[in-house]
Amino acid sequence: MPTVAAFAAPSSSDPLLRTTIERRETGPHDVLIAIRYAGICHSDIHLVRGDWGPVTYPQVVGHEIAGEVVEVGSEVTDFAVGDRVGVGCMVNSCRECENCLAGMENYCLKGNTQTYGSIDRDGTVTQGGYSTHVVVDKDFVLRIPEGIPYESVAPLLCAGITTYSPLAHWKVGPGSKVAVVGMGGLGHLAVKIAAAMGAEVTVLSQSLSKQEDGKRFGATHYFATSDESTFDTLANTFDLIVNTVSAPLKLDSYLRLLRLDGTMVNVGAPPEPLPLRVFTLFGNRRSFAGSSIGSIAETQEMLDFCAEHGIVPETELIGVDEVNDAYERVLRSDVRYRFVIDIETLRD
Amino acid sequence: MPTVAAFAAPSSSDPLLRTTIERRETGPHDVLIAIRYAGICHSDIHLVRGDWGPVTYPQVVGHEIAGEVVEVGSEVTDFAVGDRVGVGCMVNSCRECENCLAGMENYCLKGNTQTYGSIDRDGTVTQGGYSTHVVVDKDFVLRIPEGIPYESVAPLLCAGITTYSPLAHWKVGPGSKVAVVGMGGLGHLAVKIAAAMGAEVTVLSQSLSKQEDGKRFGATHYFATSDESTFDTLANTFDLIVNTVSAPLKLDSYLRLLRLDGTMVNVGAPPEPLPLRVFTLFGNRRSFAGSSIGSIAETQEMLDFCAEHGIVPETELIGVDEVNDAYERVLRSDVRYRFVIDIETLRD
Repeated sequence: MPTVAAFAAPSSSDPLLRTTIERRETGPHDVLIAIRYAGICHSDIHLVRGDWGPVTYPQVVGHEIAGEVVEVGSEVTDFAVGDRVGVGCMVNSCRECENCLAGMENYCLKGNTQTYGSIDRDGTVTQGGYSTHVVVDKDFVLRIPEGIPYESVAPLLCAGITTYSPLAHWKVGPGSKVAVVGMGGLGHLAVKIAAAMGAEVTVLSQSLSKQEDGKRFGATHYFATSDESTFDTLANTFDLIVNTVSAPLKLDSYLRLLRLDGTMVNVGAPPEPLPLRVFTLFGNRRSFAGSSIGSIAETQEMLDFCAEHGIVPETELIGVDEVNDAYERVLRSDVRYRFVIDIETLRD
Repeated sequence: MPTVAAFAAPSSSDPLLRTTIERRETGPHDVLIAIRYAGICHSDIHLVRGDWGPVTYPQVVGHEIAGEVVEVGSEVTDFAVGDRVGVGCMVNSCRECENCLAGMENYCLKGNTQTYGSIDRDGTVTQGGYSTHVVVDKDFVLRIPEGIPYESVAPLLCAGITTYSPLAHWKVGPGSKVAVVGMGGLGHLAVKIAAAMGAEVTVLSQSLSKQEDGKRFGATHYFATSDESTFDTLANTFDLIVNTVSAPLKLDSYLRLLRLDGTMVNVGAPPEPLPLRVFTLFGNRRSFAGSSIGSIAETQEMLDFCAEHGIVPETELIGVDEVNDAYERVLRSDVRYRFVIDIETLRD
């Protein structure tokens, strides 16, 4: 088994550090990828710190991966050595349930295999993208289109598809009024994508501190949710609210902003149950929904859409030795808008 | 102003009693209806008992009204004396908001004028259908099609449209898997209508006591929710769950029964907020929604659908002097499935 360099969490509380891990041999259906860039997602931090349950350490995280194909399995015809490819949040699924058969493996009823922290089909724990190489089944590898800067593309693989999928599913287009709650890693891409789809976009953020950025990304309106009058001003306004915030919100206040047949879709989820008044849903026949990343086909569609529309994540490129500091900055929302690790620094 | 006989609540705690009320003169756009039958809805009881806020007594309730036109205003051309007509839960709306202009006056942003207990445009409180006559704006009068038994049609005007509307909106048809939670006044019509639309219908009821009825109404499956294994057996099954129960349910248990892109829609609403885990919505991209009666156009469509498909509410015809006892029976769910008051007994 090939041994490769990685930057791993040794425990829930110690800093991540340089180490090595083993990857499986490239199987007939596999693609071996030399990773160039890996985005830092808030989920990475939650997982390594044990917020989501027990972890087997050392654990390598990272599910926003961009790199080049360096080897392909004997039965792989879609990819060739040198191709620029991406890997997102999942690397396998059961392929048998009705959702997998419908091409919606992100909703695999048996639970898809996550890029890190899942039990892989060989019984090992999957290890993510803070690493020089990864071996992935070809069916879970994305093609990076020309035109998206290589060093900025990685966040599309999680933050991008997570926001693109609900915008596409709920048919956002010209005439749609869309609100994006929170303008962080996910939210800033939601604004760019919704605007590119033709929607009139409103950002609902705690403060107005990122207002200029929001408008530059394509938002027409920007409101502070710390100002209670926002919720009166915007009552009955939106066709779709994409909530990227994982902190618990006052659901009823946000749901009241939906117009007839509007939907509020959460892509961030607080762990605790939230109180919801059903009467709020009666008005305007409102819906409250959840959405989880996107299928592989939809992820490719999203990448192509972003290339076509010039959508590029706003990123700050860091070396691997800056990752621990970057985690602290993510936790205090001090990043505009996504850290990307230059994996070359792991090869040094 | 014409004085007409009515059966009214004199207070929140005293029994309803025979009295008289005044109706407005029939205006140019009005239809004067001689009421023949009035259904008893659980809402009637909630309202007269003050469960939903302060009430101006005496209050006449009843929003499932069937009768004959006895007079029409000078500008009414759609209805003629002798026509069989119905009136449901609303008798007016603002006609100016975006929802009214879209023909969805049931979602009037200013709040539509309810058939009873609302402030009418002349400042009086609207009085409902436990009465010999009512004057209603022609735009809120429904035509009762041939073929539905006159003495059984009234419950379609509230219970029927309240369940038909979400079934139609969420496009139930052949291939759809629909669950109906609760098989009372609303639930039994939801079963009949969903089955007539071609869906495979499952009833989720507290016990199996009404199982035979449920299957006679068109359900294929019938499960007791008191049996915890029901929730495992039916996981990831339904495209639509219509929840007719107003008592608080464990939302997450029911939401887990939805398959990919499934929706649970509440037509009954508990007054207290319910806890909901957003993670439950992530699986299968589930939605939780509310639905409130239906538009006038949709109510007419529902009546025509029921006539075409031979859908008749299961009713127990009572005299007006049995109403107080009937209320007690409704409160203990001792009715299969809707009481209808023979208003002739109020004319005696």
